Amino acid sequence: MSILVVGSVALDSIETPFGKKNEILGGSATFFSISASFFDKVNIIATVGEDFPKKHLKMLRNRNIGTDGIAVKSGKTFRWEGRYEYDMNVAHTLATHLNVFQDFSPDIPQNLRNSPILFLANIDPDLQDKVLSQMNNPKLIACDSMNHWITGKKGSLEKFLHKVDIFLLNDAEARQFSGEANLLMAAKAIVAKGPRSVIIKKGEHGVMYYSKREHFIAPAYPLETVFDPTGAGDTFAGGVIGYLSKAGKINDATIRKSMVYGSIMASFAVEDFSVNRLLDIKMPDIDKRYSDFKKLTRF
Amino acid sequence: MSILVVGSVALDSIETPFGKKNEILGGSATFFSISASFFDKVNIIATVGEDFPKKHLKMLRNRNIGTDGIAVKSGKTFRWEGRYEYDMNVAHTLATHLNVFQDFSPDIPQNLRNSPILFLANIDPDLQDKVLSQMNNPKLIACDSMNHWITGKKGSLEKFLHKVDIFLLNDAEARQFSGEANLLMAAKAIVAKGPRSVIIKKGEHGVMYYSKREHFIAPAYPLETVFDPTGAGDTFAGGVIGYLSKAGKINDATIRKSMVYGSIMASFAVEDFSVNRLLDIKMPDIDKRYSDFKKLTRF
Repeated sequence: MSILVVGSVALDSIETPFGKKNEILGGSATFFSISASFFDKVNIIATVGEDFPKKHLKMLRNRNIGTDGIAVKSGKTFRWEGRYEYDMNVAHTLATHLNVFQDFSPDIPQNLRNSPILFLANIDPDLQDKVLSQMNNPKLIACDSMNHWITGKKGSLEKFLHKVDIFLLNDAEARQFSGEANLLMAAKAIVAKGPRSVIIKKGEHGVMYYSKREHFIAPAYPLETVFDPTGAGDTFAGGVIGYLSKAGKINDATIRKSMVYGSIMASFAVEDFSVNRLLDIKMPDIDKRYSDFKKLTRF
Repeated sequence: MSILVVGSVALDSIETPFGKKNEILGGSATFFSISASFFDKVNIIATVGEDFPKKHLKMLRNRNIGTDGIAVKSGKTFRWEGRYEYDMNVAHTLATHLNVFQDFSPDIPQNLRNSPILFLANIDPDLQDKVLSQMNNPKLIACDSMNHWITGKKGSLEKFLHKVDIFLLNDAEARQFSGEANLLMAAKAIVAKGPRSVIIKKGEHGVMYYSKREHFIAPAYPLETVFDPTGAGDTFAGGVIGYLSKAGKINDATIRKSMVYGSIMASFAVEDFSVNRLLDIKMPDIDKRYSDFKKLTRF
């Protein structure tokens, strides 16, 4: 199949206990698409400013990622500045400059409206709905969200989620959205609100998949060093959706495997700043970690 | 085989968001032995005061748990008072009255010195060493510890761990003992200090086994309600050691299965106060959860 991802392409300035980097490539659509590109064809819908380095677009195209949907607008590219403490679990936002992303409201090019798989990264749920309304019945609709929209646009999000097959969010967001402290109760409550299934991302503690029919849990791939967790969630989503697209069918077995591939992709992403580690690996590296993960968890 | 456990038998007063109970049966040896008794023969070495209710000893004997090594001393039984907040992850100790447990320094009865498996629950590492010195070459030596001994008797603990096959501790203790924030690094550092293997208990986030040759990770059995986490760690250890004793051989495959059985036993323990839930279940209930867990985690 092929995947359309709608989200951000950004320049991040990141500080972790391992160092500091300014204006490195970031954004949800970036991490997602590079991760998914190991498995299948991806096209990006996003917007950047005139200042966005051409080399990044070239890198994406060299990976066979479709960039025709990345609009270059007059103004500056979305910038995010963040800092991580020693435990790496919480991102502290130092500054957010939305710039051209502020007015992001894409018209999906005609040739991309037939994409069978749609991933709506973390954007305003009203915008997620507006994008979906332009599509011609995708077979699989997945989306992410964040605390900002759960707080400020809960009604819109809940309405939109009825149209969604897979809703991805992290553990803190799942607790906030459901009002349940226990994650299994949270997953049940979220699925009762509309989406066909939910994936709760627990960072270093792994992932949980929940639908009315199926339930899957997996630990995270254990790493000795987490260098920069930025983009881990979107990279995970890219692995999940990328694998499902390549598999060509969505059932219990492919969903379980997709989540392990997602975890493996995220395990690479956090080993360096930006998408550097993802650009460094090849499919055999991914398969090796998949096989290691099987050995680590079998009983 | 058969197991000798050395630890506490206590009376707990516990407050959780679900209620409050006074002077209920607790103690590391209690949770461990009831959990292990589902798998194999266990004998307890402990001490209680004259006030310890006879009904508890009778209950243990009715489960074929050997209580001849529980010395009844003049004085009062060890009492612990604790409280859990809504998230249930941290026990707040309100009071500890060691009473007769203060002078616990057991002479192991001759007929128990040949026990092939020894579990030394959380007691002074000097006392753990003293107990071990009385034993006739057990085939498997496992022990627990806690922050109190890591802080106050690190030298004794490190010396003793060279004699230990499996060292069990929780994630916070593993970080404290090793000085490593990352749990994989912590596990490596701990094994480098002496024990043949380490099991790091991460509560609701599962478990990690690490030795120089093998590495295993598993999520926790997901529960909708955690009623009272007291004793979960010792119940886990009882499932691990109980299964290994029943299996009769200790290798990579039996260790992996033992850890899943340990997690299953702990999942029952936390569903009610004290050992109530453990007294309520039968082997088919355990096998059912084991099979559910396999379905939940396979990919």
